[in-house]
Amino acid sequence: MKVVIIGGGAGGISTASNIRKLDEEIEITVFTRDRYVSYSPCAIPYVISNTIPSFEDIVMRSPEDYAKKNIEINLETEVTAVDKDKKEITYVKDNVEKKMKYDKLVLATGGSPFVPPMKGVDLEGVFKIRTLDDGKEVKEYAKNCKSALVTGAGLIGIEIAYAFKEMGLEVTLCEMLPQIVPRSLDPDMSRIIEGYLESEGIRLMLGQPITELKGEDEKVKTAVFDDGTEVDAEMIILSTGVRAELTLANMIGCETGRWGIIVSEQMETSVEDVYAVGDCVESFSAILKANTISQLGTTAVRQAKTLAKTITGRKSKFNPVLNSMVTKVGRLEFGAVGLTTIFAQQNNIKSVTEKVEALTRARYYPNAKPMNVKVICDADGKIIGCQIIAEERVAERIDTMTLAITEGLTCYDLSNMEFAYAPPVSMVTDPLVLAVEEVSKKFH
Amino acid sequence: MKVVIIGGGAGGISTASNIRKLDEEIEITVFTRDRYVSYSPCAIPYVISNTIPSFEDIVMRSPEDYAKKNIEINLETEVTAVDKDKKEITYVKDNVEKKMKYDKLVLATGGSPFVPPMKGVDLEGVFKIRTLDDGKEVKEYAKNCKSALVTGAGLIGIEIAYAFKEMGLEVTLCEMLPQIVPRSLDPDMSRIIEGYLESEGIRLMLGQPITELKGEDEKVKTAVFDDGTEVDAEMIILSTGVRAELTLANMIGCETGRWGIIVSEQMETSVEDVYAVGDCVESFSAILKANTISQLGTTAVRQAKTLAKTITGRKSKFNPVLNSMVTKVGRLEFGAVGLTTIFAQQNNIKSVTEKVEALTRARYYPNAKPMNVKVICDADGKIIGCQIIAEERVAERIDTMTLAITEGLTCYDLSNMEFAYAPPVSMVTDPLVLAVEEVSKKFH
Repeated sequence: MKVVIIGGGAGGISTASNIRKLDEEIEITVFTRDRYVSYSPCAIPYVISNTIPSFEDIVMRSPEDYAKKNIEINLETEVTAVDKDKKEITYVKDNVEKKMKYDKLVLATGGSPFVPPMKGVDLEGVFKIRTLDDGKEVKEYAKNCKSALVTGAGLIGIEIAYAFKEMGLEVTLCEMLPQIVPRSLDPDMSRIIEGYLESEGIRLMLGQPITELKGEDEKVKTAVFDDGTEVDAEMIILSTGVRAELTLANMIGCETGRWGIIVSEQMETSVEDVYAVGDCVESFSAILKANTISQLGTTAVRQAKTLAKTITGRKSKFNPVLNSMVTKVGRLEFGAVGLTTIFAQQNNIKSVTEKVEALTRARYYPNAKPMNVKVICDADGKIIGCQIIAEERVAERIDTMTLAITEGLTCYDLSNMEFAYAPPVSMVTDPLVLAVEEVSKKFH
Repeated sequence: MKVVIIGGGAGGISTASNIRKLDEEIEITVFTRDRYVSYSPCAIPYVISNTIPSFEDIVMRSPEDYAKKNIEINLETEVTAVDKDKKEITYVKDNVEKKMKYDKLVLATGGSPFVPPMKGVDLEGVFKIRTLDDGKEVKEYAKNCKSALVTGAGLIGIEIAYAFKEMGLEVTLCEMLPQIVPRSLDPDMSRIIEGYLESEGIRLMLGQPITELKGEDEKVKTAVFDDGTEVDAEMIILSTGVRAELTLANMIGCETGRWGIIVSEQMETSVEDVYAVGDCVESFSAILKANTISQLGTTAVRQAKTLAKTITGRKSKFNPVLNSMVTKVGRLEFGAVGLTTIFAQQNNIKSVTEKVEALTRARYYPNAKPMNVKVICDADGKIIGCQIIAEERVAERIDTMTLAITEGLTCYDLSNMEFAYAPPVSMVTDPLVLAVEEVSKKFH
């Protein structure tokens, strides 16, 4: 059997590796436009900030490493066409067009940065960051700049803004919506991070879009906002989200939805012997019971495990998603899972919430840090969301809450749960328990 | 209504506070032999090690603070008798015997240190550590010593041994069983901590009991082991466990089991209007489906919440326990939940286990630390135990596993779960997932 995988990101490469772990015979060929495979795009901001010394550090494996496992990687190669009847792809490598047959085709085409409708995005000094080469280019360019503006205050936007600050640039972070991380945090939680970023010297411009980028000598110079405000910056990063890359999927005729390719729980598309994983597919939301988009590296990796089992004839199922996320920006770690209050409202789910400020260790233990926890329940007390901010120990608490939501626990159920305690690492009553106890009171 | 609480530890004091939160009228009187209430005994080793500056720091509230909430605290008072028919207790304070009527009586009598059968335990320089005053006495005495021996390598024993090392003493840590933390860790996991303690200069003596303590001028000088080995030490700490204090419970005629007072899920004893919480009661094991003992501060606090609801006429239920635990000793954090392999075997549960070594952050991220995870499943793949060792981020992973066990998840279920990821705080595939994936392979 011959498997052709289009895309060398987390979804594509993990599919290749996982198939190989399960089967030594299957022929596996991966095509990617990129100059690298097997790197962590999530790590790019930390290389820009010099926390990680070099871009080479975040490349885990080379095409040669994969060759040893009998996985063929084609770098800098564009797949230009797929003939689903002939089961054949057309690709261009070094300006030469070739064809290759497949038995099973995997679309792991990922996403393309969304560029908002504004004038001047083609000026020099305007960047999108998606690949490792994008990261290198941005870092080089930034070395000769004194100021930068980042538009789009999702996780990547915030991480890049902070990285520029670490490089010594004067930084402005903009968001069309009136808060940062609007997809994952409620405004009362995002305020805490906004305050921290401002205390670190990052200027925030929230609640209005940029309408135009103005330049001088073809170089970007000024961002103009909807209300006429102008902010000068020598470079501008567009981190305004990613849209599923669907050119090939559409060419093949794979069914697509609002956000991406429609796939079964086994990662099959609507077209026989064509599968898809990663940023280009839609996932099923565990809470909304409807399709959503889950453009996370972890989602791609988990989908790839399921797909490898599907392709090798094993049983497997990709579960509904909750889109849990976490990051660390400077001193502050923050994470979230499930629905925000606003998102619940938009989906006609009545929510009951409570927010507590607790500590990461026993009160008397040195270096106990404040921990803010917000819990969101539905009208029956079932937990549907959680947001946490602290200087440490956020990620794993998000995981506990992910499991609690997955299992359908109510705030009351969780308030009775056992949590491990020792003064150096926790409070005798865990911050999560304090939060669910508080929200429980609203149900009596 | 008048509630009398015997015992001022976590169970007694939390019962008092929780009743008051629910009801402003009930009269509440607490009796304790101790000179302090509302302190954290778990923190004593960290004061001895000077991590926490003083013993006063770990006292959270004074009797005056409780008086403001209309809770009467009687320090240094011994309750000598209970007449359950007259609903009256007899107590001695300042050498004066008095009586007090009650409507509801709470036994929160805790535990007494178990002293193993050996000669010489009454010599000067031999200590048990249970109360804050014990901690003060030990720290003062240690200041004039050059060497110490700690017998009993449970959590407290290890913490105290490490604290002495921090004070500059030459330390020997002994355990009758052939490994440290035998109740919570498998030998392959305890070896890791044993290696660390030895690298820190603590001498370990495992696998044989001390039979005698020999002295000179009434002061302890030498511990003699079963095989004749002699180890000199200027002071000796007996940290060989705690037994439920049952004198009053027996006097009243409360039903007791192998380890302590038998209570209902509402914390009622077998005697009407007599309740019990904390180290003196038995708990129901979630895995063994039989009574067990759970002498943890967190258990006492959770039982107290249930009892306060029972006493004020609300519905509540104390759930079965898993005895999750965590501590931090020097650089190393370790925790466990559920059954060890040996304990499973002793209870005729066939277990399937796997141990992985992963990292606490992405491989390329600075300061990623090794994390050892061991997962224990039953013959059906259901998770029944987990043990984790790392320099950071252990406690919350134990909590996630506690929830997984409580919900009856199999290793396969958990391997499909979503975990939050960012390079500074986790691996793209969480160490817990790596562990359950490995153990899952044994079921195919």
